[in-house]
Amino acid sequence: MTDSLKTLSEHRCFGGIQRFHEHASREIGLPMRFSVFLPPQAERGPVPALLYLAGLTCNEETFMIKAGAQRLAAELGLALITPDTSPRGAGPEGIEGATASWDFGIGAGFYLDATVEPWDQFWRMESWIVNELLPLVTHGMPIDARRIGIFGHSMGGHGALTLALRHPGRFRSLSALAPICAPTQCPWGQKAFRGYLGKDDETWLAHDACALMQSQTAPPYPAGILVDQGLADKFLAEQLHPHLFEAACRAAGQPLTLRRHEGYDHGYYFIQSFIGDHLAHHAKALKA
Amino acid sequence: MTDSLKTLSEHRCFGGIQRFHEHASREIGLPMRFSVFLPPQAERGPVPALLYLAGLTCNEETFMIKAGAQRLAAELGLALITPDTSPRGAGPEGIEGATASWDFGIGAGFYLDATVEPWDQFWRMESWIVNELLPLVTHGMPIDARRIGIFGHSMGGHGALTLALRHPGRFRSLSALAPICAPTQCPWGQKAFRGYLGKDDETWLAHDACALMQSQTAPPYPAGILVDQGLADKFLAEQLHPHLFEAACRAAGQPLTLRRHEGYDHGYYFIQSFIGDHLAHHAKALKA
Repeated sequence: MTDSLKTLSEHRCFGGIQRFHEHASREIGLPMRFSVFLPPQAERGPVPALLYLAGLTCNEETFMIKAGAQRLAAELGLALITPDTSPRGAGPEGIEGATASWDFGIGAGFYLDATVEPWDQFWRMESWIVNELLPLVTHGMPIDARRIGIFGHSMGGHGALTLALRHPGRFRSLSALAPICAPTQCPWGQKAFRGYLGKDDETWLAHDACALMQSQTAPPYPAGILVDQGLADKFLAEQLHPHLFEAACRAAGQPLTLRRHEGYDHGYYFIQSFIGDHLAHHAKALKA
Repeated sequence: MTDSLKTLSEHRCFGGIQRFHEHASREIGLPMRFSVFLPPQAERGPVPALLYLAGLTCNEETFMIKAGAQRLAAELGLALITPDTSPRGAGPEGIEGATASWDFGIGAGFYLDATVEPWDQFWRMESWIVNELLPLVTHGMPIDARRIGIFGHSMGGHGALTLALRHPGRFRSLSALAPICAPTQCPWGQKAFRGYLGKDDETWLAHDACALMQSQTAPPYPAGILVDQGLADKFLAEQLHPHLFEAACRAAGQPLTLRRHEGYDHGYYFIQSFIGDHLAHHAKALKA
């Protein structure tokens, strides 16, 4: 565990421990926050873990307090890791536009490394998570680096699908809840990609889950990907486009279980309702 | 269902429905908010329900989004009802001191009817909940008025214990999480009772769970009361006094299961961890 790692708070939870951390991120150049739930099984040795990426406006606490996931993680012996959704603090707040929108800038990192000024200075979420946060938690905590699954919600569903496809072999299992499946084809994604990656929309495709899946030569997750989507989700038609990801998976021969749920919306009551199936999906792959 | 009942939002959750309501309260003279979770079983007829009373600074949403209770309520076929913790809005905000403290006034109704000015005008939480809210939900929703249990946390634990003892026969089952057990003997309770009930501390005893239990001539909940308390709870020594309630129950012949949990604090990670045992405790009595 590096010297810069601080524990901001900790709470006993289902016989395990829920902690909130901050560390001085080398990749981002600012303090970054994340949370970790360690199940009781972690007292006896390294456990598999799930990396959860949250949606727009969320932070490292949202999933841990709202999803009801620890009950099942404690039963299954899974750790949970949730990073914050963007850089925060004095630096980013000085960038013009960083706090002007709820869907861009602070709270809206989109899990990529920005390439255009001024965002390229701090907005390096992909490098932070993959190259710094995962090594930090797997070296310093009882978490098994070879057994990491990834999932997320909405913007974080986009993050899970794209990081899983951009880093082959890094993650053993993959799922998403109401993910932004085709960011190059929806307003949230287009606004973010134009801001963080610039006007050349060819460069955007490297961060679009549908484009990434279409470019696969073999199914990257042969045990299958699980996606849940509520049909009363007010963002479904304009922003999420799960049917495009379904078509991309079909073209790539990638097994996909896409479940469409009558009456469910975009929020954490939807997430709570299906989180157990996601944990079970990952546990099956990670404990095999 | 009365004409004044509004549904502010609704969310499908575990096959049931999570709703947030507001109604024009006759007892309080202001709009009051509460939330109801109906399990899937409520589609086939009235179900038993648990009334949950929340702690200081909470509102009608806190328990529903943070406790992870709906998963188990849906399995057990229990409805959940959570009122807000005080009057709010233009009237109360005009009362000097209503927003000055986090432990008195708004967000801190203490589940009693105030008897001194200016609080006696709006602060009628006991009458609102017992005489108005419960009839409203049991008449207008598929909730069985004869099968209501009550529980709560901290200030709401005090509320659950006192309302259950002050209204014999109204509730079929009782439990509490980290309750304020002897408000006449702790700073939170003394501040609230002095403010809402006046300086004559003889009148306070009618709202003190320990005093109420000591005055029982027969055990009011012969099937037992469940209380959970974390031993890392920073409010335990000064504010909560579960040992006094334990002694009062012993004196009254009231069966009590008081569980003291090493390492657990006062927050919702503690509540999440034991909420399942509370729902099972109530289900056993309500479905008998």
